[in-house]
Amino acid sequence: MKKNTAGIDIGGTNLRCGVIGKDGTIKSRISVSFDKSLNGVEKQTDFVIQNTKQFLSANEKYDIKAIGVGIAGQIDDKTGSVLFSPNLNWHDVPLKKILEKETGLDVYITNDLTAITYGEWKFGAGKGEDNIICIFVGTGIGSGIIINGSLYTGCSNAAGEIGHTTVVSGGRRCTCGNFGCLEAYAGGFGIAKIARERAAADNKSFENIINTAGGSIEDITAETMSLAYKTGDKNAALLIKETGLYLSDGVISSVNLLNPCVIILGGGVIGGIPDLFDIVKGEVAERALKASVSNIKILRSALEEDAGIIGAAGLAALRCNHS
Amino acid sequence: MKKNTAGIDIGGTNLRCGVIGKDGTIKSRISVSFDKSLNGVEKQTDFVIQNTKQFLSANEKYDIKAIGVGIAGQIDDKTGSVLFSPNLNWHDVPLKKILEKETGLDVYITNDLTAITYGEWKFGAGKGEDNIICIFVGTGIGSGIIINGSLYTGCSNAAGEIGHTTVVSGGRRCTCGNFGCLEAYAGGFGIAKIARERAAADNKSFENIINTAGGSIEDITAETMSLAYKTGDKNAALLIKETGLYLSDGVISSVNLLNPCVIILGGGVIGGIPDLFDIVKGEVAERALKASVSNIKILRSALEEDAGIIGAAGLAALRCNHS
Repeated sequence: MKKNTAGIDIGGTNLRCGVIGKDGTIKSRISVSFDKSLNGVEKQTDFVIQNTKQFLSANEKYDIKAIGVGIAGQIDDKTGSVLFSPNLNWHDVPLKKILEKETGLDVYITNDLTAITYGEWKFGAGKGEDNIICIFVGTGIGSGIIINGSLYTGCSNAAGEIGHTTVVSGGRRCTCGNFGCLEAYAGGFGIAKIARERAAADNKSFENIINTAGGSIEDITAETMSLAYKTGDKNAALLIKETGLYLSDGVISSVNLLNPCVIILGGGVIGGIPDLFDIVKGEVAERALKASVSNIKILRSALEEDAGIIGAAGLAALRCNHS
Repeated sequence: MKKNTAGIDIGGTNLRCGVIGKDGTIKSRISVSFDKSLNGVEKQTDFVIQNTKQFLSANEKYDIKAIGVGIAGQIDDKTGSVLFSPNLNWHDVPLKKILEKETGLDVYITNDLTAITYGEWKFGAGKGEDNIICIFVGTGIGSGIIINGSLYTGCSNAAGEIGHTTVVSGGRRCTCGNFGCLEAYAGGFGIAKIARERAAADNKSFENIINTAGGSIEDITAETMSLAYKTGDKNAALLIKETGLYLSDGVISSVNLLNPCVIILGGGVIGGIPDLFDIVKGEVAERALKASVSNIKILRSALEEDAGIIGAAGLAALRCNHS
């Protein structure tokens, strides 16, 4: 039982914890909603600490020696501090130090997409492959990169920000401050914002969508659009088609630049609107350079929402020498 | 004298040959215009063979044992065949086999940007760096990538096609068949095309530019725009500013995705319009993700038009074991 590691995925909406075996199997897991009313770093880290400790004590029998944590944002790989996490608005939080002190275990902190990519590579859709771009479309859009059989994390541990690829020069303002970023068009947040703008401009033809959202334009989300799309709503179909084309632009750009062997697509938006996968697959075949896609495989995520805990645990086992 | 290698750069307009020392110095060189009237693969390869042989016999004293060739297009790294070269419209030309038979020397064939990047990395602006994107803006736009201290050439030896990053979704048709590619806006060919369209639509205000081109709109090139820009022409200034912004979009996308330590910018268009470098540098600092550029260096090419022959020779020395 010594080869089990805990994986924690700190998302904007959920905190997930899992006990993960050496082979990537999940032995035990919980998912708790991240309490949005928790203001400030202290209350939020306390929430993470308490849930982690509870989870560990409920799973004592697995003899866990190390914890891997995936969190959106830039991580200092040497110190395990969260330099900046946009979801939680954390700046310079020494998360590794805090969690090691509180749990007495070795802790490894990594970017959420790095964890996800490691999980998909070792135990999911990318098994046995050496050159992968793993793209997850959720509220935002991120990716992780495997190059020549290694995780590639860049010069300052910040590689993979495919959501901030410019797809419309001078286009929509992105949360990052730049204009025309992929995630401003095809991320869940961007999809919802565009839908709300269109509904406000033409609430008559968006009646079905507004009703699906519960009657208020402000409550339209990417999930609303996914539901409306499934009922055959024309405005939803148009927006999802556009989303697919923008997403394809970003994927094609990365394929032409990096000539990967494998593209993995996952995340809540792809999961909720599976047709997006087919749109991207078709567009890449049609519009990417022939030389760049001669051998490419475009695959759906195999681990989906478990990829983060599985990958974080796997990386912790590796980096903390508990493998 | 045994450590010299020949480097050959087969461009769309020039054929360059050099004798290159182990330390990257050029001992001897020629540059001949590629005769545009040569139709068909046979006449064109014959032109390459004859010039190469002449160059070798004029430089017998350097005791050359291997030849490196850089050429735009996709190369089969195993056979040294040119699978496709868009400039010359070559398909499946066994260039390594042809040149080895004709010269009796070992020959290594590589993509032009791979050669340039290797040259800049080993002997130019990127010396000592481990993570580089080397971007050359000429008629088209290409790049080479150094990752973790190795040349990264992708799954099918086609990585680096940054010119085919989508910067305007659904935008201008590119020579590759896709729409909105970076090089359709900021490559020399794209710049010239946009300038000609604008001149045709408003030949009065483009009078100075048309005159600079010799009186005919059809003769406007990127060089025309560079000359007009230097005389303070307002239309040229506007177009160059736009070119710089599109180029920045492409560079920012690659920086956010790959988080390189170094960006090298070179090529005829950057050489001809040096302000483009400063525009890109400023825009990257302002618009790229802070985490992605915290340590970045943005440098001008050090080897410029010699990068191709120096890099091709260096790669040949390495791959043919003559180093």
